[in-house]
Amino acid sequence: MRSPVPDYLQAVLDACADNSVGEVASYIPELGQVDADQLAVAACLPDGKLYSAGDVDTEFTIQSISKALAYAIALEQHGIAGVEEHVGVEPSGDSFNEISLGPKGRPRNPMVNIGAVTIHAIIGDPDDSAEERSQRVLDGMGAFAGRELTVDEDVMESELSEAHRNLALAHLVRSNGTFDADPPVVVTGYIRQCSAKVTVKDLAVMGMTLAMGGVNPLTGNRVVSRRVARHVLSVMATCGMYDAAGDWMTDVGIPAKSGVGGGIMGALPGQAGVATFSPKLDEFGNSARGIRVFERLSEEMGLHLMDVPVSADGVVRARDEVTVDDHAQQRVQLQGALQFGGAESALETMSEIEPGDDTVVVDVSHVTFMNEVSTRMLGDGMKRLKEDGHDVVLVDPESRLPHEDDVTVVEEL
Amino acid sequence: MRSPVPDYLQAVLDACADNSVGEVASYIPELGQVDADQLAVAACLPDGKLYSAGDVDTEFTIQSISKALAYAIALEQHGIAGVEEHVGVEPSGDSFNEISLGPKGRPRNPMVNIGAVTIHAIIGDPDDSAEERSQRVLDGMGAFAGRELTVDEDVMESELSEAHRNLALAHLVRSNGTFDADPPVVVTGYIRQCSAKVTVKDLAVMGMTLAMGGVNPLTGNRVVSRRVARHVLSVMATCGMYDAAGDWMTDVGIPAKSGVGGGIMGALPGQAGVATFSPKLDEFGNSARGIRVFERLSEEMGLHLMDVPVSADGVVRARDEVTVDDHAQQRVQLQGALQFGGAESALETMSEIEPGDDTVVVDVSHVTFMNEVSTRMLGDGMKRLKEDGHDVVLVDPESRLPHEDDVTVVEEL
Amino acid sequence: MRSPVPDYLQAVLDACADNSVGEVASYIPELGQVDADQLAVAACLPDGKLYSAGDVDTEFTIQSISKALAYAIALEQHGIAGVEEHVGVEPSGDSFNEISLGPKGRPRNPMVNIGAVTIHAIIGDPDDSAEERSQRVLDGMGAFAGRELTVDEDVMESELSEAHRNLALAHLVRSNGTFDADPPVVVTGYIRQCSAKVTVKDLAVMGMTLAMGGVNPLTGNRVVSRRVARHVLSVMATCGMYDAAGDWMTDVGIPAKSGVGGGIMGALPGQAGVATFSPKLDEFGNSARGIRVFERLSEEMGLHLMDVPVSADGVVRARDEVTVDDHAQQRVQLQGALQFGGAESALETMSEIEPGDDTVVVDVSHVTFMNEVSTRMLGDGMKRLKEDGHDVVLVDPESRLPHEDDVTVVEEL
Amino acid sequence: MRSPVPDYLQAVLDACADNSVGEVASYIPELGQVDADQLAVAACLPDGKLYSAGDVDTEFTIQSISKALAYAIALEQHGIAGVEEHVGVEPSGDSFNEISLGPKGRPRNPMVNIGAVTIHAIIGDPDDSAEERSQRVLDGMGAFAGRELTVDEDVMESELSEAHRNLALAHLVRSNGTFDADPPVVVTGYIRQCSAKVTVKDLAVMGMTLAMGGVNPLTGNRVVSRRVARHVLSVMATCGMYDAAGDWMTDVGIPAKSGVGGGIMGALPGQAGVATFSPKLDEFGNSARGIRVFERLSEEMGLHLMDVPVSADGVVRARDEVTVDDHAQQRVQLQGALQFGGAESALETMSEIEPGDDTVVVDVSHVTFMNEVSTRMLGDGMKRLKEDGHDVVLVDPESRLPHEDDVTVVEEL
Repeated sequence: MRSPVPDYLQAVLDACADNSVGEVASYIPELGQVDADQLAVAACLPDGKLYSAGDVDTEFTIQSISKALAYAIALEQHGIAGVEEHVGVEPSGDSFNEISLGPKGRPRNPMVNIGAVTIHAIIGDPDDSAEERSQRVLDGMGAFAGRELTVDEDVMESELSEAHRNLALAHLVRSNGTFDADPPVVVTGYIRQCSAKVTVKDLAVMGMTLAMGGVNPLTGNRVVSRRVARHVLSVMATCGMYDAAGDWMTDVGIPAKSGVGGGIMGALPGQAGVATFSPKLDEFGNSARGIRVFERLSEEMGLHLMDVPVSADGVVRARDEVTVDDHAQQRVQLQGALQFGGAESALETMSEIEPGDDTVVVDVSHVTFMNEVSTRMLGDGMKRLKEDGHDVVLVDPESRLPHEDDVTVVEEL
Repeated sequence: MRSPVPDYLQAVLDACADNSVGEVASYIPELGQVDADQLAVAACLPDGKLYSAGDVDTEFTIQSISKALAYAIALEQHGIAGVEEHVGVEPSGDSFNEISLGPKGRPRNPMVNIGAVTIHAIIGDPDDSAEERSQRVLDGMGAFAGRELTVDEDVMESELSEAHRNLALAHLVRSNGTFDADPPVVVTGYIRQCSAKVTVKDLAVMGMTLAMGGVNPLTGNRVVSRRVARHVLSVMATCGMYDAAGDWMTDVGIPAKSGVGGGIMGALPGQAGVATFSPKLDEFGNSARGIRVFERLSEEMGLHLMDVPVSADGVVRARDEVTVDDHAQQRVQLQGALQFGGAESALETMSEIEPGDDTVVVDVSHVTFMNEVSTRMLGDGMKRLKEDGHDVVLVDPESRLPHEDDVTVVEEL
Repeated sequence: MRSPVPDYLQAVLDACADNSVGEVASYIPELGQVDADQLAVAACLPDGKLYSAGDVDTEFTIQSISKALAYAIALEQHGIAGVEEHVGVEPSGDSFNEISLGPKGRPRNPMVNIGAVTIHAIIGDPDDSAEERSQRVLDGMGAFAGRELTVDEDVMESELSEAHRNLALAHLVRSNGTFDADPPVVVTGYIRQCSAKVTVKDLAVMGMTLAMGGVNPLTGNRVVSRRVARHVLSVMATCGMYDAAGDWMTDVGIPAKSGVGGGIMGALPGQAGVATFSPKLDEFGNSARGIRVFERLSEEMGLHLMDVPVSADGVVRARDEVTVDDHAQQRVQLQGALQFGGAESALETMSEIEPGDDTVVVDVSHVTFMNEVSTRMLGDGMKRLKEDGHDVVLVDPESRLPHEDDVTVVEEL
Repeated sequence: MRSPVPDYLQAVLDACADNSVGEVASYIPELGQVDADQLAVAACLPDGKLYSAGDVDTEFTIQSISKALAYAIALEQHGIAGVEEHVGVEPSGDSFNEISLGPKGRPRNPMVNIGAVTIHAIIGDPDDSAEERSQRVLDGMGAFAGRELTVDEDVMESELSEAHRNLALAHLVRSNGTFDADPPVVVTGYIRQCSAKVTVKDLAVMGMTLAMGGVNPLTGNRVVSRRVARHVLSVMATCGMYDAAGDWMTDVGIPAKSGVGGGIMGALPGQAGVATFSPKLDEFGNSARGIRVFERLSEEMGLHLMDVPVSADGVVRARDEVTVDDHAQQRVQLQGALQFGGAESALETMSEIEPGDDTVVVDVSHVTFMNEVSTRMLGDGMKRLKEDGHDVVLVDPESRLPHEDDVTVVEEL
C-alpha cells in the first residue's frame, strides 16, 4: 500500500492555500524579490524519514531561525552557565528587533536580535574575522541539517547595506562589556549566518535533531549534547515566536523559531521535526501561512507539547512465572519507553514480590528506551530483591542496565 | 521488596533542608503565623499512586495555586474562546500583583492577580453572591483534589482586611466593562477561593488530574475536558511562575503554579503530578525551598517537558507471517502508546506490503494508548490495504479502532 | 476712548471658531448633554480687571482644573514637604487616568487622577465624611474665585455611577498606606470636588490668584502663601497638560490646567490669569479649541513664560546731585520693579560712590515692587555706605526698606 | 563702596563646600583625572557684568551642556518646525543615555544623548566631515560665549575610545532614516563638540545670551533669534535636568543644563545667566554641589521662574495735565517695561479720556522696554484717541512706536 502521510501534508497545504494575508519582508531589498506564492511543508521523524509537500526544494535564507542553532553552538562551546552570563532566557514581550536589555544589562533572550547578535559574538574567538566566526556557525548548522550549507551572497550584500539597526544593537551590548569582539565584525558575521540557504526539508531535519536530544536522524551524529538540545527547546518554547509566545504555546504547542525569509522550524521533543515555508509575513514578522499550517498540523496530527500519552501505561508486559530448566521462576517483563513513571510502575510490580530465596527474572529485552533515572531505579530494585534473599536474572541483550556482580545476565531466557 | 521511591523523595527533602533563604508571607497577618520550618513533597502517578515525604498532612491555604484551577473551571463554563474575550494568555513579565492590563484592555493572563480576579468574576452568574461564586470554585477544586475542600476562615478574614489592592484590580477591570459582577463581591469571593485548605498530597492529585488530560486519577471522574486541561498546562508553562518563566522552563521544565501559602503544584503531561510545601518565599513570591525541590526532582527524576523519549521507537512489535487455520497470513503487530510518530511507523511498515489478495492481520491488542490522529491513520491504512486487494483482520479486543464494514474484527488470533 | 482689549479677545475667538475637531466627554453621561458649540475666553489682570468674550456666563463643572486648586489647599495644610511624602512632582508621560505609581510607591504628580485622588484624601481629617472633605475644598476653591461655589448635582450623580476607575486608583494608593481615609469616601468627595460649577471668568480670577503669588485680585485676600502659589505654578508648568507638557511649554508657555468639562485655566506669573471654555476635547482630553485660543493668546499677546523683558533695564532713575537745605547731596533714585538684577544695578551705581563724609540719598519712592532679596541687597548697600563714612538718607514713603537706626528716613526730599 | 554681590556668591560657595556626595565621572578615563575639590560659581547680568567666585578660571569640558547650544544652532539652521521633524520636545523620564525613541520614531528631546547626537547630525551638510560639522558647532558655541572655544584633545581621544553607546544611538536613529549622515562621522563630531573647553564664566555668559533672547551681553551680537532662544529655554525647563525635571522646576526654577564635566549652565529669562562648576556627580549625572549652589541661589537671590514681580504695577508714571505753549494738554506718561499687562494698564488709563478736540500727550520716553504686543496696543490706543477727535502728541525720543501720519512726534515736551 501507499502511505497516506504525504496526502495528509498535501491536504493541509491545500487548506492553507489562501495567500491574501501578510507581506513579504521588504526592509531588505533582495528579500522582496522572492516568489510570494511559494508554500511548502516538511516533517522529519525520529528514524530520519522525511515527508514533504509543496515547494520543497526551494532554497531560501534561514534568517532568524539560525538564532536557535547558533545558540546551541554557543552552548556547546561555553556551557549553559557560561552563556547565561551573556544572554538570559526570559521572554521579553518585545518585538524581534527591540533595542532593549534585561535587568542585568544582558539581552533578555537569544531569540531577539540583540541576543542573537551577542550569541554570534561569543562563538569562536574574540579575534575571529567575520568570515571565520560565521563559518563556524555555518559548519555547525550544517551538522544540524546533515549537509553543507552555503550563503546567498546577494541577500547578504543587501542586508549589509541596511545594517544600521544591528550595528546599534551590537554597539549597545558591546558598550556594556558583554562581549569583546568588534561590533562591525560581529554584525557582518551575523548577517552572513542569517544568509545561509536552506530548504524546508533542511529545517525539518534540524528540528528533528533538536527533538532527538541532539542527534541528527540522518547522519546519526551527535551534534550537541542532550542537555543543550533540551535547553534550546525550552527557550524556543517561551521565546521563539516573539510576542505571541502564549498564543503559540496554547494553540500550536510546538517549540519553534521563525525567520523573515519565510521559514518556520518546529521541534516536538521525541516526536517530530516540522517545517514550513511561505514568504508572506504577518505583523509580528512570522510567516502568515506557516503559522496556519502549524496550527493545523498541531490540531490534526495531535502534535502538541501538552498532549502526550500517559507514559507508564502498559510498561509491565508480563508479571508471571516461567519455568527455566525445570525451575519455576518469577518474571517481571517490561516493554516500551521507560522514564520515571514507567520505572515506578516496574518497581511497584517488583515490590509485590515477597522476600524469599527463589529466582526473579527481570526482562528488559522489549524495552525500547530507558532514561537515566529509570536505569538507576531498576538497578535499585534489583539490589533490593537481592537483599530480600532472591537470586536475580537480568535479561538484557543490549547490556543497558548496570548491575551488581552477583546478578546473572543473559541475552534471552 | 520495598519500593525505593519514598526514599528518593526523602533524600530530595534532606538535600533541600536548609531553610535560611526567604521570608514567610507577612502582608497577610494570619499567614505569618505558620511554622516556617515545615517541608513536604508529594508525587502522584497516572494510576493514582501517591508518594510523599515530610509534613504531608499539614493543611495550608491554596492561595494563587487556585488561579490555575479556577481558570480551568471558567474554561469549562465559557469555552476557550469565551474566556479569551476576558483574559489573555501572554506572559506579562510583571510581578504577580501588578496593576496593569494588556493591549486590548484585558488582563494579560489568568496567573497574575488582575487576571485571576477577572476569572473568578466570570464564573457562575454575574448576580451570584460571594458565597455562591466561591462555592462553585471550591466544588470544582474539590473535584480536582478528589475530596471536599474547606476554607480557613481566619486567613480569609485576615486577607479581607488587607484587600485594597485586590479591590483596586477588580474596580480597574470592571471600569473597562470586562465583567459585570460587583467588585467588592468578586474580591470577597476570590479571597475565599484563595483560602481553601489543601495538603501537599491534594496538590499532587490536582496536578496529576491536569497531567492526565482532565481525569482525576483517584476518582476516575473527568473534571475538565482534555482540551481545557491542555490549555491550562500551556498557560502554566509560560505564565505560572511569574517573571521567572524562562528560568523555570529551562531549569525545571514542569508546568507549575505557586501560592504564597507555600505550596507549588506541578503537572508533567502524561507523567506525574508533583507538589511541594514550604512557607518561606523568595523575592518573586515563590516558595524558596519548593523551587529547589522541584529543580532537584526535575534533575534526578528526569522530569522535564523537553526530555521525553523518542516515542515511535519499537511501536511495531512484530512484522511476520502467522498461520491461522492453515492459511499463512501477513501480520503487523503493534505495541505501546501510539501518537502521530508511532502511527506513522505502523503505516510505514504496512506500506511495505505489496498489493495482493491474501489476508493481512493488524493486531492492536498490545497497544496501550491511541490518540485521535493515530486512530484515524490506522483506519486509513486498513482502507488502503483493502484497496490493494487484501482481506484485513483486525485484532482489537477493546474495539478501539473504527473500521469499514468489510474488516473482520477478532478479539484474538 | 474705548479700550481695544475686548476686541482683541473677540478676534481671537473668531479666529478659533471652527469646532470640527474633538468630541465632548461622553464617559460621564451627564457631561455629554452640554451645548458643544459654546466658546468663551477671559483674562484677569493683576488689578483684578476682567476682560472676556463669548459664552462668559455659562456654568460648567470644573473637573480636573480642581486638581491644581486642591493641591494648593493641601500644600497650605501640610506644607510642601508634608505633601511630597504622599505625591511627587515629576511629569509622568502618562495619560490623565493612568493607574501607575512612581518609584517610591507615590503617585507621580498631583495632576494625574491617581495623584489628585490622593491629594483630596489628605485634605482635612482622615475621618472626614465625603461631604465634609469636599466642602473644605469647595470653600478653598471659592476663595480662589472670590465667590462661593456650588455643585452640579446631576453631573456628580452621573460620575458617581461610573466611578470604578477612580475607586481602583483610590484602593491602589490606599493599599500602599499612602493615606488613611476610606477609599469610597475619598472618591465620593473627589467627584463632588470635580463637580463644582464655574464660569470662564471664575477660572481667570483663580489663575490670576496663583499668578499674583496667592492673593486674590478681586477680594485682596491672601488665599495661599507666595511659596505655595509658586510651587503650584511650577507643577502646572511641567505636569498640567498631561503628556503634552513639552509642546505646551514651547508653544504656549503659560502654566495651565485643563478639565474634561471643557475649561482651561492658565496663570502667567505676575502678568495674567487666562481661561477658556469649549466642550469638545482632543485625544489627550484637553479642550480642542481652548488649546488653539491659548496658542493664539500666547502668540499675539506675548504671553509666554520665557518671553519676559530684561528686568533690570532702567531701574536707576537718577544718579545725580541734589541740593537739600543748601547742602549738595549725592542721590541714587530708583524706579520700577526690583528683583535681584535690578537691585544689583542699584548696588553697582551705589558702589561708584567714593568713601567720604557727605550725605547720600537713596530714593525708593518710585519703586513699584521689591522682592525679599532686593530689600536685603539695598539694606546691605546702605550699610556699606555708612561704613564708608557717609550719612545716608532714605526716601521711603511706604517704609518698605528695613534699615539701621542711624539712617534718616524721610517721606520725600 | 564695594558691591556686596561677590560676597554673596562666596557665601553660597562656603555654605556648599562639603564635597562628600557623588563621584567624578569615570566612564571616560580622562575625566577621572580632574581635581575633584574644585568649585566655582558665576553670574552674568543683562548688561554683561560678571560676578564669580571660586575656581573661576579652570577650563573643563562642556559635555552635555553643549546639547542646549547645538540645539539652538540647529534651530537657527532648520527652523523650529524643521528640527521637530527630527527630534521632539517632550520630557522622557529616561536617564540621559537611554537608548529609546518616542512615538514617531524620533528621539524624545534634544537633551538626552540620542536626541543630541541627532541634533549634531543635522547641523551643516550631511556630507560634512566630523571636523567640519563639529567646527560649525564650536563656532556657534563661541558666539554664545563671546570668545573662540578650543577642544580638549585628551578628553576627546578618551571618549572616542569608549564610544560604543553613542555609536549604538547614532546607528539606531540612522536606521529609522531620521538623518542622512554617516553614524561614525556623527559620533566623532559629537564627541568633539562635547570636548570644548569652557570656564564657569563662559557658561554664565552663554546662559545670559539665552536669557537675553539670543543677544550676547558681552559682544552685543545676536547669536540666535528671540524665538529660538525662547524655544531652547522652554526645552531646558522641561528636559534639561533629566529625570528630575519636576524637582528642579519646583525647587530651583531656573531653566538649566548640566554636563558630566561638572558644569551647570542656568538661564533665567530677562534676569541672569548663572553657572556652577564642581566635578562630583550625583546618581543622575548632575553635579552634586552644583545643584546645591543653584538651590541656594534660587532661594537667596529670588531667582525662580515662577517668582516674578507683578509686571504692570506703576507703568503709568503720570496721568495729568501739562501746559505746553500755554495750552493745557492731557498727558499719559508711561515708564518701565511694557508687556501685555502694562500696555493694558496704559490703555485703561487712556480710555478714561472723554472724546473731545483737545490734545493728548502720550509720553513713552521713560519706557525701558516694549514688546511687540504692547507696541501694537499703544498704536491702537492712539488711533482711537484720534477717532475720538483728539490731537495726539507722542513723546518718543527713540522712535520706538509706529504711528499714523497725523500724530505729532516730539523728542521731549
